[in-house]
Amino acid sequence: MERPADPGASLARLPGKDPHNNPGDVSVDFPVSVVLPAGGTGERTGLQTPKQFCGLMGRPLISYTAQAFERVSWIQCVVVVVATESLALMRDIAQRYRHSKVRVVPGGSTRHRSIRRGVQALREPEEQVGAGTPKVVIIHDAVRPFVDEDMLSKIAMAAKEHGAAGAIRPLVSTVIATTSEGYLDHSLERAKYRASEMPQGFTYEVIHQAYQKCTDYDLDYGTECLHLALQYCGTNAKLIEGPPTLWKVTYKRDLAAAESIIKESLSQSSCVLTGDCPSALSLAASLQKAFTTQHMDLDIIPNLQGDHANYLLKEWNFIQISVNGSLSEVKALLASLQAAERALLNPVVVVWVHLSGADLPSIGETATEPAAISDLASPRLENWKTFCCTVSTSGSVSVLP
Amino acid sequence: MERPADPGASLARLPGKDPHNNPGDVSVDFPVSVVLPAGGTGERTGLQTPKQFCGLMGRPLISYTAQAFERVSWIQCVVVVVATESLALMRDIAQRYRHSKVRVVPGGSTRHRSIRRGVQALREPEEQVGAGTPKVVIIHDAVRPFVDEDMLSKIAMAAKEHGAAGAIRPLVSTVIATTSEGYLDHSLERAKYRASEMPQGFTYEVIHQAYQKCTDYDLDYGTECLHLALQYCGTNAKLIEGPPTLWKVTYKRDLAAAESIIKESLSQSSCVLTGDCPSALSLAASLQKAFTTQHMDLDIIPNLQGDHANYLLKEWNFIQISVNGSLSEVKALLASLQAAERALLNPVVVVWVHLSGADLPSIGETATEPAAISDLASPRLENWKTFCCTVSTSGSVSVLP
Repeated sequence: MERPADPGASLARLPGKDPHNNPGDVSVDFPVSVVLPAGGTGERTGLQTPKQFCGLMGRPLISYTAQAFERVSWIQCVVVVVATESLALMRDIAQRYRHSKVRVVPGGSTRHRSIRRGVQALREPEEQVGAGTPKVVIIHDAVRPFVDEDMLSKIAMAAKEHGAAGAIRPLVSTVIATTSEGYLDHSLERAKYRASEMPQGFTYEVIHQAYQKCTDYDLDYGTECLHLALQYCGTNAKLIEGPPTLWKVTYKRDLAAAESIIKESLSQSSCVLTGDCPSALSLAASLQKAFTTQHMDLDIIPNLQGDHANYLLKEWNFIQISVNGSLSEVKALLASLQAAERALLNPVVVVWVHLSGADLPSIGETATEPAAISDLASPRLENWKTFCCTVSTSGSVSVLP
Repeated sequence: MERPADPGASLARLPGKDPHNNPGDVSVDFPVSVVLPAGGTGERTGLQTPKQFCGLMGRPLISYTAQAFERVSWIQCVVVVVATESLALMRDIAQRYRHSKVRVVPGGSTRHRSIRRGVQALREPEEQVGAGTPKVVIIHDAVRPFVDEDMLSKIAMAAKEHGAAGAIRPLVSTVIATTSEGYLDHSLERAKYRASEMPQGFTYEVIHQAYQKCTDYDLDYGTECLHLALQYCGTNAKLIEGPPTLWKVTYKRDLAAAESIIKESLSQSSCVLTGDCPSALSLAASLQKAFTTQHMDLDIIPNLQGDHANYLLKEWNFIQISVNGSLSEVKALLASLQAAERALLNPVVVVWVHLSGADLPSIGETATEPAAISDLASPRLENWKTFCCTVSTSGSVSVLP
């Protein structure tokens, strides 16, 4: 089972797609930092709040994007460039969601001026985190939260080799040239053109030089960093086809779309804790079979001890199977999740499966316990759901909220 | 207050946008019919069901698109072209949702072959509805459900005048030309290019001639009708900038986005029925003020008699204010809604506001009635919600589900 090692990586696992995001394939062994321009006013969403600060399941969009970079071990620093009036808000978000790699800097009056400011900040001592000026700078949009490690590594490697690299996608619509009177002049042959998307990567030298040499007109009216690299450094960017999830949250409707992707991604996998009892293992094996037919992943582990502890930081859904009727295992699981502050980033769901039946001990003593799990979690924790399910050896299943 | 006269028109009223869709502005006085190619397999959604048949709040996407055309009085016929294996399904949908203008025909192996088949069907006697071969044919996508009458009328008028017309949108991404080795060659100047979207309109002569003259290569590999009109009829289409809602449901995430637009649009307006009692009128006036601050429309009418009956076919949300504590008014409202089969197309919400207080008669007799409204609606009707709310003169409000 190929699994990214970082917490939160389940967000990169997309519907209908296996995670080929194996960190073993990654050979980014040079310093990489990120500039995230987030100064937009979001006027196209028709909302008062700029879209990068809109909540998806209660958490700001930009926090998901920041997390997508933070979970990548070889990324050093994420410079988020925001409008002056959003500095305090962005700093609050970085603190609340524990974005330890994020540095917040004030932007300029246009997209290029903001990116230039972010690139400069990477070499200013007060903004540096650790390793100094990076070899490669990745530039991304705050409103494209679903970028994965695989794409970032391809962009970083290609940028190092070619000086510049950018993500592309096939054109969704035919592109047409218009006459000055508003008539069709000609349509472009789709196969020869691509949409330029994000992320893009540059060696520090190339992007720094491009911004040194470019004109005020470029800074005021341009939008495309690849174009500056070509025009001012003679660097033809290497183009890399990206997945459809690189799409940019542009309109209000896209917030609903992004939320649906997050929800689906969070529900695609689960971790089942069995202990050592054969009945629990047998139930877990049946669950795994059922999950597989639904294209969902289920990992079976005895407990969260030793190496298994990292599942605590990878998963959002836990199924604790108990056979002795005691709440102690699920209590310990909830305590561990709380200590790791998992519910801060995404909702956590814990299902306690209580195996009961004539062949099991102490069933008589635990008949009143199922409801207790709700009391255990709800009052103490925000953003948690717990369910209790009793499976008897006769095959009947009952679920309590 | 500008209101479209047709039922279902509230779907065209979009977030943050006033309805400028006044039928008084429309001067389409020539025969117009529509071809809706719906033969796609929806492979990009990653779903088994082609996306045009996916349910949005329980109703297939294509039914929303069909409704968008049916509610336009000057559109005669909507030919939906589907894959042979979907003929029965599409006929069922047309029947279930009462799409009386829809004719279903089997498509060809590519998009152009399907559209050509739809255009031909418009002059075949067995497919004709009423007025024979239309002057203008509008071609649209089954998966763009939010097209409004205003855009359709602009396209139809321009098509009649210029032979062809098409909707365009600004480019969202920079378009770049690639070298054969996968490097950036150059980026296009965004201002000179547009994305070609749907709807498009053609005189019957132009589209018919284009499909007569074009090659098998065009039919197999082309996608752009405007291009055929230019190449084979020498017609430079008039281009008309459309709203962002013309976007095409392409990926699975777009289904969630489309559903969010429908929900928001349905919740933007309501009709309040007051009777003649001054307290009810005063409460309605306060509600209207509160709705306005939320950018929502509220129409106040005494009842659904006479000219007011058309609100029954325009609205999805009703607030019935009662002062005598009797359920008879809300019972009559529910009966009218049921007779009009409103809940077939979209969810209907009825709120019964029961004004109570010392200055009102018969409060004593009705103390047990609020809960009765749920019983009234729920068991009989699918896709309905009813709420009861008691407002006392002391200002306290209670809501029952």
